[in-house]
This record gives sequence, structure tokens and C-alpha cells, in this order.
Amino acid sequence: MIVEYDGTNFVGWQIQKKDRSVQGVLENALSKRFGKQIPVVGSGRTDAGVHALGQTAHFDVSDSEDIPKLRKSFASMLPDDIILHELSEVSDDFHARFSAKFRTYKYQILTAPSAVSRLYCWYIKDKLDVNDMHLSLRSLIGDHIFEPLAKANPEEKHYKCNVTDAKSEKIGDIIYFRIRANRFVHGMVRAITGTLVDVGRGKKSTDIFKEILESSDRDLVSNYAPPHGLFLEKVEY
Amino acid sequence: MIVEYDGTNFVGWQIQKKDRSVQGVLENALSKRFGKQIPVVGSGRTDAGVHALGQTAHFDVSDSEDIPKLRKSFASMLPDDIILHELSEVSDDFHARFSAKFRTYKYQILTAPSAVSRLYCWYIKDKLDVNDMHLSLRSLIGDHIFEPLAKANPEEKHYKCNVTDAKSEKIGDIIYFRIRANRFVHGMVRAITGTLVDVGRGKKSTDIFKEILESSDRDLVSNYAPPHGLFLEKVEY
Repeated sequence: MIVEYDGTNFVGWQIQKKDRSVQGVLENALSKRFGKQIPVVGSGRTDAGVHALGQTAHFDVSDSEDIPKLRKSFASMLPDDIILHELSEVSDDFHARFSAKFRTYKYQILTAPSAVSRLYCWYIKDKLDVNDMHLSLRSLIGDHIFEPLAKANPEEKHYKCNVTDAKSEKIGDIIYFRIRANRFVHGMVRAITGTLVDVGRGKKSTDIFKEILESSDRDLVSNYAPPHGLFLEKVEY
Repeated sequence: MIVEYDGTNFVGWQIQKKDRSVQGVLENALSKRFGKQIPVVGSGRTDAGVHALGQTAHFDVSDSEDIPKLRKSFASMLPDDIILHELSEVSDDFHARFSAKFRTYKYQILTAPSAVSRLYCWYIKDKLDVNDMHLSLRSLIGDHIFEPLAKANPEEKHYKCNVTDAKSEKIGDIIYFRIRANRFVHGMVRAITGTLVDVGRGKKSTDIFKEILESSDRDLVSNYAPPHGLFLEKVEY
């Protein structure tokens, strides 16, 4: 499936005992439909407050399911803040997480205050140099060990990611930062965005990401950007 | 002042005894600042759930006020869903409502379901013909009696409005409908939008607005569009 969600009122993707998670809402709907527990496996987790335009996930049911019918009833069981964009049959060896080749995240930075965009952007009052921001991102492209730009995570086997693209551009009052990689480690996009904004402010040099990756020095990394400007845009297979 | 607000959590512009209104929140902030009741006069009301990008309003204080200082403290007293975009001194005879020459409203119609746009757009599942919609709007331009397209309102002296522009265009998944007039009567934009969507669906002809205005027949008018797709975009003086 491909789903879009507004992360505002979720504790994130991952299922929790009590709190409202995206995975939990999807599993509840499917479990109700099938009368038994149906586990849903996502392409990856998103943190509390992070949105997704094209999160992907899979679940296992019998071959005999009428997919168009299931798509319709499943979509109708979802709340307003989750939209089912696609539901289709995949091969038996497909795995939403392990088969994914690339993920793309988008971060929206607002350069002028706005009431109606506030839930989906991070507003920065200071003047930002978009050109410097864009330039700094070029050092991220390629294979790097992203440990200094990640949350410490004992479950993480390694911190190596292959970034195929990273860019920023300003359209209207919003600066869009997009990054595509084979995998992301926890906190990576928000750590990069926080540091990127300090490049835009002139507080950090355009070489900062090069320095961070070479030195592995966490002290060079700025505070994490807040979750509500972040979108998992798409997952490629 | 020019203010932007997200109408989602307001009962509308007009002050109410108990419920949270935009006018009430603005008056409370100013009254706290000045230690006395400061009435705020808007360019016009907006209904519950309707947003504004550029609502205008005025209030009276002593000539000796330091405006930049007042702007800063007033802005800091407002909640996240109201943004003060401008505060400046005007002449004594300025009146936010009576001095206004033109108002522009925007309505956003979503043609594909979306979780992250749902609070600011009306989603229509049926295929819409934007060209027909645009054509139908041309009959609204000029001086007309908009009584059939308005809520009955005993306070309204007359229903004559001069529409200077009305157009619709599709950008991405959103159809934007914009209308500019010297004045609007209550419910007018939502009645027009509801009917406009039926033109897009092919349920009503592109002459429908001509027929409504000539016949004054309310039965030709479709159901009102919901408030959350509507924005008061700007007020001109």
C-alpha cells in the first residue's frame, strides 16, 4: 500500500500500546476487516509529528482476495488524517522495508510567519541564504557514515548511507530541502535540517557537513529541526 | 492591522460570549495591553471555519503610541493560529469596513484526496471540468443583486454587489476559485462555490449563474460549500 498521513495527531508510525500510531490505526482497520490480527510492515518508521505523502507498507492475506473490493473497504475504514493512495498485490518475496531501494524526505522551512502553513513547516525568523544552504548539501552526496548525524540506536547495525541527492530551493515563502538515499538512520534528516538552517543563517560554514562526516564530531551538529516540517515523500522499489 | 488566521479552531470572526472568535482573541490581547476594553472593527465577518490570509481591522488608541513597540508586543500576545502581518497608523477617518473598496476571496477545491491538505481544501471525488467552471463564472462579473446566492439576513440593507473578477484555475491537484467584489453578502462565496462544483461535475450548465441572477430562484442554487476551503485573501482600500 501507499499511504499519506498527517503526523500531527500521531505518536509516529510505530505501533504503541495506548497511543495513536499510524501502524496501529492501519492494523486495527485490517484486523477488523479480516477478523484476525493482520500485522502491517512499513518501509520504515517516522517520528511523532512527522508526515508522510508516500509511506509504503505490506501485509499478508490469502491469494484469493478481491483487491479492488479490499481497497475500497479498507480506505473507508481509515480516519481523515490517513489516506490510502494505492493498494495492490505484490510478489511473495516483496518486503516494504527490505525491498526498498531509495527513500526521499522533504523538509519545509517557512521564511515568513503564517497561520495556515504552521502545521506543516518550520518557521525561521532569521534571513536564510538558500544558495549557501544548497551548496553545503553537496558534501552529503555519496557513501558516508552518518553516525554523528543520527540518534544513538542500539538496534542500528551500521550508520552507512548512500545519499544520491540532496538539494534545497526556495519557492514563494518556503524553502524546500529534499534528500534521497538508500536508507536513513534515526534522526538523520532532522539533524541535517537543523544544521542546514544554521548554514543559511551564516552561523555555520558551507563546509560543515564535510567537517561533520570527516571528524564524526557530534558537537558540530546543530539542534534537531522539529518534526512537523518533515515529510516522507516517497519510497522507491 | 492585517492579520492571517487559521479558522479551524474559531467560531468565526465575530466576538461571542463564550466561544473562541478571532475578534475576541484580538480584543482580549489589546485590552490586556491597554488595561481597558479596546474594540476591534474588522473589514467584515468570516464564518466559523473560514480562514483569512489578509483580514484587516482597526482600533482606536491615543496618538502618542509607539507603533513599532505596540506591533511587537501585540504580535507576541497572539496564539499560533493568528499572525499579525502589519500594524500601522491610519488617518482618523479610516474605517476597516466602510473604507474598504474591494475584497478578494479564494476557495480551494482538492481533486485528489490528501491528508495534509484536508484542513484547507474541499475534496471533490468526481471529475471536474475546470474550463466549464471558469466559463460559468463570467456571468457573475458586473453589478448584480445577489439575494438568491445569499443567506437571508435582516441586517442586510441590500444585496447588490459589484463583482470585478471571478475566475478558476487548476494548479497541481487544487482548483483555485477567486472572486473580487466591492462587497459580499453573507454566504455568497460558499453558495457560488457549491453551484460552481456542480457546473464542474456537469450537473449544471455554464449559464447557471446567469439564470440564478435573472430569475432570483434559490432552487437553482446548490448546497453551500463547506467553510474550511474558503480564505478571505485580501481587502483593498
